[in-house]
Amino acid sequence: MSDYQLFLASTTNGRKITVLVELLNIQSKVEIITIDLAKKQQKEDWFLKINPNGKIPALASKDSSNPFYLSESNAILQFLVSKYDTENKFSYPVNSNNYFKTLELSLFQVSALAPVQGKIFGVIRNLLHLSESDVNDLYTEIKRVYQVLEDILKSNNTGFLVGDKLTIAEVFVLPWIEKAAFSKIDLTQFPLLNDLLKRSLQVPEIAKGLAY
Amino acid sequence: MSDYQLFLASTTNGRKITVLVELLNIQSKVEIITIDLAKKQQKEDWFLKINPNGKIPALASKDSSNPFYLSESNAILQFLVSKYDTENKFSYPVNSNNYFKTLELSLFQVSALAPVQGKIFGVIRNLLHLSESDVNDLYTEIKRVYQVLEDILKSNNTGFLVGDKLTIAEVFVLPWIEKAAFSKIDLTQFPLLNDLLKRSLQVPEIAKGLAY
Repeated sequence: MSDYQLFLASTTNGRKITVLVELLNIQSKVEIITIDLAKKQQKEDWFLKINPNGKIPALASKDSSNPFYLSESNAILQFLVSKYDTENKFSYPVNSNNYFKTLELSLFQVSALAPVQGKIFGVIRNLLHLSESDVNDLYTEIKRVYQVLEDILKSNNTGFLVGDKLTIAEVFVLPWIEKAAFSKIDLTQFPLLNDLLKRSLQVPEIAKGLAY
Repeated sequence: MSDYQLFLASTTNGRKITVLVELLNIQSKVEIITIDLAKKQQKEDWFLKINPNGKIPALASKDSSNPFYLSESNAILQFLVSKYDTENKFSYPVNSNNYFKTLELSLFQVSALAPVQGKIFGVIRNLLHLSESDVNDLYTEIKRVYQVLEDILKSNNTGFLVGDKLTIAEVFVLPWIEKAAFSKIDLTQFPLLNDLLKRSLQVPEIAKGLAY
C-alpha cells in the first residue's frame, strides 16, 4: 500500500512532483490523484481540509495514526527527498551549504521566476490584457531572471544549479524553462540553461515526469 | 569576531533578519551592514557577486577558507537557526513534520502573502496605478490570504502558526502583518492573527527587530 496521496494536475507545479516521483522511482509509495481544476475541485471543502490555500499540489499521509498534510510544491519536494532519497542522489545532506543553496533557489523560483513567467502565460493565453509597454517590461524582467539562472550555472561551473549533480534544484525550475519557447523566450540567449534543459530532457524519468 | 556579514535594509524582508538576530541574541555573531537602496547599492558589481539577483537581504561568510553566500530572506532564517538555534527554541528539528510545515509557510508567504500585499504597498504609495476594480480584486485576494493564516491558527489551536511555540514561521509573516493598518486591512476581522501580532509585539526582541 502507498504511504501518501499526492493531489495534483498537469501544471508547472504539478509536474515538479511527477518529475521527482519518476526520478526516485516511488510510484508504489505515492498514489497520484488528479484534481480537475476546470471543475474547481481544489476549492471543495474536502480539499480545503488538506490545503486551506485551495491550490495543488498537496500531499496527505495515509497513516491515520500520524495524519499529515503538506502543500507548496517545493516543500513537498523537500519532504519527498527526506523520506525517499536517503542516499542523497537528488538532494544534499540536510544543513550542508548546498542544502541551503537549494532552499535559496527554491525561494528564487517562487519569488522571481514563477510570477513573471506566470504573467507571460496569462498574456499569451489572452487571460491578461496588458499594454505593449507592460509586456516589454515583463520580457525585460524575465530575461533578467533567466540571466540570474545563467549566471548561477556559469559561476557554479558544473553544469548544474547547485553543487555537482542533478537535484531538486533543477526540478524547481525545469517545468518553467521547458516552457521558454511557448513563453516566446529565446533560450539560445542563455546557452548554459539551454544545455541544462537539453541534458535534463535526455533523462527518461524527467521526460516522463514532464509529459504528465 | 563575527562569523557572517548580513547585508540588509529596513524592508519587510530585511526586518525578518533583524527580528531573528534579536531573538537568537546573535548580534556578536553577525555583522549587519545597511545597504542604501536609494543609491541602488544592491545593483553594484561587488554586491552582485554576493547575490546575483541584486536584492537584499544577503549573507556572506567571513571565513575565507569556506566562502559562502546566501540570499532569500527565508533561506537565511533557516540557515541562521541551523547555526545558532541548536536547541530549537525558535525552530523545529530538521525533517520533523513541523519542520516541513515551516517550509510550507515560508513558501506560502513568498508566493501568496508578499506579492499581493506588496502590490497594495505600491498602490498606497502611488507607485502603481490600478483601476478601482483591480484594487478591489487585490483586497479580495489579501483577505483570502489573511483568512488562510487565520484558518491555520484556528486549526492549529496553539496560538502559533506551526506547532506550539513562536518560531521562524512567525518571523516570515510578522513584518507583513505588522503593516496591515498601513495596507488598509482591518486586522480585527482576523482575531487570531491580530492576537498573534499583539502577543508577538510584547516580545521585546521582536519589537526591537521590527523597529529596525
